[in-house]
Amino acid sequence: MAEPWQDTALPAHVRAADLLARMTPEEKAAQLSSVWLGTEPDGGAVEVAPGQHAYADRSAVLDRLLPYGLGHLTRPFGTVPVEPAEGAARLAALQRTIRAGNRFALPALAHEECLTGFTAWQATVFPTPLAWGATFDPALVTDMAQAIGTSMRHVGIHQGLAPVLDVVRDPRWGRTEESIGEDPYLVGTIGTAYVRGLEAAGIVATLKHFAAYSASRAARNHAPASVGPRELADVLLPPFEMAVRDGGARSVMPAYNDIDGVPGHANTELLTRLLRETWQFTGTVVSDYFGLSFLESAHRIAESATDAARLGLAAGVDVELPAARCVDVTDRPADALLDRAALRVLTQKCELGLLDPDWEPVTGDTPVDLNPPHMRDLARRLAEESVVLLANDAGVLPLPAAPRLALVGPLAGEQAAMLGCYTFPRHVGVHHPELPPGVDVPTLAEALRAELPGAVFVTDPADADICLAVVGDRSGLFGRGSSGEGCDAADLELPYGQGDIVDGALASGTPTVLVVLSGRPYALGRWAGRAAAVVQAFFPGQEGGAAVAGVLSGRVEPSGRLPVGVPRHPGGQPAPYLAPPLGRHGDPSTVDPTPLHPFGHGLSYTTFSWDAPHCDSPELATDGETTLRLTVRNTGDRPGTEVVQLYLHDPVGTVARPEVRLVGYARVPLDAGASAEVQATFPADLAAYTGADGRRTVEPGALELRVSASAEQVHHTVPLTLTGPVREVGHDRRMRCEIRVK
Amino acid sequence: MAEPWQDTALPAHVRAADLLARMTPEEKAAQLSSVWLGTEPDGGAVEVAPGQHAYADRSAVLDRLLPYGLGHLTRPFGTVPVEPAEGAARLAALQRTIRAGNRFALPALAHEECLTGFTAWQATVFPTPLAWGATFDPALVTDMAQAIGTSMRHVGIHQGLAPVLDVVRDPRWGRTEESIGEDPYLVGTIGTAYVRGLEAAGIVATLKHFAAYSASRAARNHAPASVGPRELADVLLPPFEMAVRDGGARSVMPAYNDIDGVPGHANTELLTRLLRETWQFTGTVVSDYFGLSFLESAHRIAESATDAARLGLAAGVDVELPAARCVDVTDRPADALLDRAALRVLTQKCELGLLDPDWEPVTGDTPVDLNPPHMRDLARRLAEESVVLLANDAGVLPLPAAPRLALVGPLAGEQAAMLGCYTFPRHVGVHHPELPPGVDVPTLAEALRAELPGAVFVTDPADADICLAVVGDRSGLFGRGSSGEGCDAADLELPYGQGDIVDGALASGTPTVLVVLSGRPYALGRWAGRAAAVVQAFFPGQEGGAAVAGVLSGRVEPSGRLPVGVPRHPGGQPAPYLAPPLGRHGDPSTVDPTPLHPFGHGLSYTTFSWDAPHCDSPELATDGETTLRLTVRNTGDRPGTEVVQLYLHDPVGTVARPEVRLVGYARVPLDAGASAEVQATFPADLAAYTGADGRRTVEPGALELRVSASAEQVHHTVPLTLTGPVREVGHDRRMRCEIRVK
Repeated sequence: MAEPWQDTALPAHVRAADLLARMTPEEKAAQLSSVWLGTEPDGGAVEVAPGQHAYADRSAVLDRLLPYGLGHLTRPFGTVPVEPAEGAARLAALQRTIRAGNRFALPALAHEECLTGFTAWQATVFPTPLAWGATFDPALVTDMAQAIGTSMRHVGIHQGLAPVLDVVRDPRWGRTEESIGEDPYLVGTIGTAYVRGLEAAGIVATLKHFAAYSASRAARNHAPASVGPRELADVLLPPFEMAVRDGGARSVMPAYNDIDGVPGHANTELLTRLLRETWQFTGTVVSDYFGLSFLESAHRIAESATDAARLGLAAGVDVELPAARCVDVTDRPADALLDRAALRVLTQKCELGLLDPDWEPVTGDTPVDLNPPHMRDLARRLAEESVVLLANDAGVLPLPAAPRLALVGPLAGEQAAMLGCYTFPRHVGVHHPELPPGVDVPTLAEALRAELPGAVFVTDPADADICLAVVGDRSGLFGRGSSGEGCDAADLELPYGQGDIVDGALASGTPTVLVVLSGRPYALGRWAGRAAAVVQAFFPGQEGGAAVAGVLSGRVEPSGRLPVGVPRHPGGQPAPYLAPPLGRHGDPSTVDPTPLHPFGHGLSYTTFSWDAPHCDSPELATDGETTLRLTVRNTGDRPGTEVVQLYLHDPVGTVARPEVRLVGYARVPLDAGASAEVQATFPADLAAYTGADGRRTVEPGALELRVSASAEQVHHTVPLTLTGPVREVGHDRRMRCEIRVK
Repeated sequence: MAEPWQDTALPAHVRAADLLARMTPEEKAAQLSSVWLGTEPDGGAVEVAPGQHAYADRSAVLDRLLPYGLGHLTRPFGTVPVEPAEGAARLAALQRTIRAGNRFALPALAHEECLTGFTAWQATVFPTPLAWGATFDPALVTDMAQAIGTSMRHVGIHQGLAPVLDVVRDPRWGRTEESIGEDPYLVGTIGTAYVRGLEAAGIVATLKHFAAYSASRAARNHAPASVGPRELADVLLPPFEMAVRDGGARSVMPAYNDIDGVPGHANTELLTRLLRETWQFTGTVVSDYFGLSFLESAHRIAESATDAARLGLAAGVDVELPAARCVDVTDRPADALLDRAALRVLTQKCELGLLDPDWEPVTGDTPVDLNPPHMRDLARRLAEESVVLLANDAGVLPLPAAPRLALVGPLAGEQAAMLGCYTFPRHVGVHHPELPPGVDVPTLAEALRAELPGAVFVTDPADADICLAVVGDRSGLFGRGSSGEGCDAADLELPYGQGDIVDGALASGTPTVLVVLSGRPYALGRWAGRAAAVVQAFFPGQEGGAAVAGVLSGRVEPSGRLPVGVPRHPGGQPAPYLAPPLGRHGDPSTVDPTPLHPFGHGLSYTTFSWDAPHCDSPELATDGETTLRLTVRNTGDRPGTEVVQLYLHDPVGTVARPEVRLVGYARVPLDAGASAEVQATFPADLAAYTGADGRRTVEPGALELRVSASAEQVHHTVPLTLTGPVREVGHDRRMRCEIRVK
């Protein structure tokens, strides 16, 4: 006769509670633990997380935990390179060992990184999140995430440590490339699209980093965040709220740094009050790697590792990653804390089927193909949609069919300019130079030769019709690149002195196209009006070379839009576009934060007209909605995609607020001469903001909807009037403007 | 028979209340108003405040207000140059006109700027506040302020718009030169010393800018401040609290910018809850110039100018400066708001004697000397104590008696490198080039020729024994300089390309002394170890040339200490020294915020030994105190002054806190071979900080006092243990470590 916890007909939390009641404190503590195989001394692993080596002292090892069970398994594929099928087989064998070790035969929950694709050897490498932001295409991001999740599930992984929902506040931050953009609506919608895809594949999505990691001082990794409650509520938290509520994310990871002194891993207000009590989140909170240890060693709010575990669990952390160090099976936090966290872990394991009597580890097919044609195709489409044509002043793009081309800049020949820091090749593969990359990643130089078979490539710009100056970043971790985790920038000057390459090309007199392949926006004001054209791609992944080459040749119509503004000057950071008038304009400061190219900017090879919108009702109640309709027409002779953007301007409020913020957008693909009607339903809830009294309200009064091609290029302004009482909105408010394209 | 309000035997608030009860609403509103004569169209004034011209539309004019009375008179001396005696006479005549205009014969309260001395033509120009910070000498700052105040009172001024108590958070801010330093204890003690001096002279001191103006985003003037309540309470507010409580300041000016959306002029929490209800402040809150108008035009929290007045007065603003525009005698805020503010203004006027029946305007002596010998002497002593010897690696300083000197850099010959932006010559005089400067301000070049009559000055560094490369800032307002209000910097690279001057001098091979005359610290890492010596002065005022020359020659022993760290690199800002470990060190970021020279650093021409301190009791109660004694000895063969600095390190707390912070300091002047005992009484109250629960408490546990020569050069560490209960401390806590030098 099966015990209740084994009865698949019962709800997950009932089964989990039954199992919990049977467990010893040691067994409960073990469920909050993880081990990271392959990182033991001489395990062959290199440092991919801050503190990995420093914290080896008391990090949990498998043998010690086996008799009690094990909560998580850390990175079975992304630590040391392994053939996918072999990795799946090893993981399955390990799960059998784990089950055999504990009296409930419980397996571990295996988690892996998956930000730009499954972080495993031979897996498809997708564009980096900043490129997803540039697509303004949530549906395609969902497709990508579902494909990623399906391939992970196929080899035995249960949880993915993605997406990053940090809103970019200062692009000097090395993890800007891992973020989606500088607008919370864009980050929220694209991030939620990713979550939906991953969760649809049965993989637990992990929202990180909760919260304000991106607001660290001077964009230095782990530095404190100076943020008040309103900025937190209206800028940094909405993407998390949307992804919990609309995306169904089942895990959250706290931020490493502190907000006004309170470290993310000890932030009861965020991890418990807001996340669980207000947002009704029922999943797990997993620590960032060594995040609990940092409470002692870096934040210095804990007396010892044990004290750190107590503080973290009390605040709302459930699982210590990557290897239990503060949560020890013998030196344990109080039983009530263990019970609360273990119940959440067991409930999630139950939902994943890990408590079922007939559970068997996934072994994967042989051979396992982690880079099948449909995933390569998704990677290609995302890459193509993400390339942003910033300028084409001289009209040299698209390139002629058989140009004499000079290609300058070392990044033209490097894969490091295509791949984000959380891709397997840059995260792990870089430490195994003997290993083939696992997937085919053409460099831009290789892709151009394939794209333009008739082109003649010359060395000297003076001998060429057109010069392509390829500049940007090498991704890497902790100083092993110019962009990526721990690779923060002191300013937004192009790294490695690459500005000289551009200057040199321009000095030749040959029309020069600036191609930026990077993980963050760089200051391009020095070349404004001088470069013949400028193309920006954010680490576009394995298919990125062909995508950029395709945009240059004209085979691919450029349709990306900036998810972050491109600054004019290297200094003067931070300068996010979300700022009130006094923060946005130069006066009364000599430092002008106005970007060279604003958020949302991007050109096409064709032209569009935007008819004046029709508004159903310019008056709407504070709990109402209104619908705009406008026709967009492709007035050129090529196909193209326009991105219709809706920004909200609220003239007067109880606190200073950003001049505009994004409240809706849609891609509108149009053949030459074709038109489409765009229909946007704007709910008054989207006008809510956190006022002087700390409440989130919708207020009666005047509003403006700006129908725009970027944050600054306004095609039409639609005045609205909200009527009725001031209305406080809660966490059931509408967070989206639904836009249809007919 | 005199009315009660005229009865000088009654308390000021009683008299004021009696007068208020007799006033019409128009008369009350007029008391909250000011006029700014000389700034009417064609009045001859240039723009010295942001918005001055833009807001001329409805700014109050004298004729309109005369029948109702007038609260303030704006800048009678600092608007258009005037001979001091003539200015006093004009002001007296104006006061007679004002008295004659209203039925109570009330004069106006005349205010003027006085940050670096009375902002009047021919008045002594003192060093800028950053230089006061460098002196670590509160007593001398009190003497200066009392002398300034006395001269202002002598010509009919009642209130001075100083000091600036903003704690430097990002030295890119143009107003860094107007601030005292980056440590709240230093700012609080030096700032309070200034307040005591000004108030001792009978002048109302005005604390500004309340609060967080210095924490504006990217240090851009007026940009929003992202600050949480703990950073506000523990870093930005303590200097204001100390100056109100210990200094007896009678006026406060709100900040232009917003904190987390709430503009300073509408911040009820700060202006009323904290300032009046908690700190028991009873003076007046005067708006910054056009600060109320900005509530409408920039912050957009007011629907109209009238609405802005209502919001400002409701929050706690009492007087609109510089000219009433939002507060209108006919279009008025509600009576209750008028009553509250007018009572405060009238009470202050009563305290100043302006309600007395026998009040007569001050006419000043003829001639009036605003730059007498004792003030010049104070300016000299402050300048001399403020010069910081940063490095003397090659031992080239002091200079030989008759060197061959090359003097390079245009600032060597400019007064603009000596004077802060709020000095009369730079604030006003610069717009009147026909006018003599009014005071003698030798440039460094002139001072050096006087200092070293035996020196031979040559043009080419290759012909010299020693090269002096003089670099730094020109002060100015709103783009008319590289430092000063509105002159923010994008990074901390020396402005005007002056780095090339230093490089050129070094390239000559001649030993080169870098002399930085500036309003903010600049990145000097590029020349670390290459310059033969480095001397830093912060706009040292009219006597600054001789002071710097005296330090170079050795006539003056260098004794200044850095009130702000000198950064290594131009980028990566902000990087204040008040940061927890994760924010301070490079790991895990590629950007290392460690300064080249830390807060508190400064060298001497002699050497000192620091004996191990004796501590009365290493255990003290959470409401107790302990006393340290240590002997400091001048071990060299020249006189010199050591600055003993006490820093607190608290190993574990409930929130992440700065690694160290200053809690005490003393200058110790010593003849060659002499020694002195330094006795410091450390109250446990100084260990208080704002914890995770938002309360300010002193907690039992381990502490470290670091007896240091800078924030990083620790001579001795004194472990302490606090015992007893956690103790919440209020606004009656002890805020000072008393240090005696015997």
